[in-house]
Amino acid sequence: MDISLSSMEKLLKKAGAKRVSDSAKNALRKELEKLAKDLGKKAVMFSKHAGRKTVREEDINLALKK
Amino acid sequence: MDISLSSMEKLLKKAGAKRVSDSAKNALRKELEKLAKDLGKKAVMFSKHAGRKTVREEDINLALKK
Repeated sequence: MDISLSSMEKLLKKAGAKRVSDSAKNALRKELEKLAKDLGKKAVMFSKHAGRKTVREEDINLALKK
Repeated sequence: MDISLSSMEKLLKKAGAKRVSDSAKNALRKELEKLAKDLGKKAVMFSKHAGRKTVREEDINLALKK
């Protein structure tokens, strides 16, 4: 995934942070990438289970419930 | 957050998808942005609770546990 550290800083400042440490930006990015990967894998699994080659919104929604 | 739809497609194809619908990319992006925002808000709350103006990695880690 292409999540930049600067977008992590922007997000945290928008949430009210005055300053953000580099390791905090890295930790948030790492976690989001992990979450994205996990969701992606589940969605692909569900699309295959439904006999499709296309991942659809319903697969993402099911991955979010699992 | 600056998550592109093309990075959502890349992620899902890496997870094994042959094709990805536009609405699936949108749904995944939307969810990741929501997760990121929620985590960010919690981390900022914890940094303030600890009397700091800087969000540190420990705040992110605590937000992940909550």
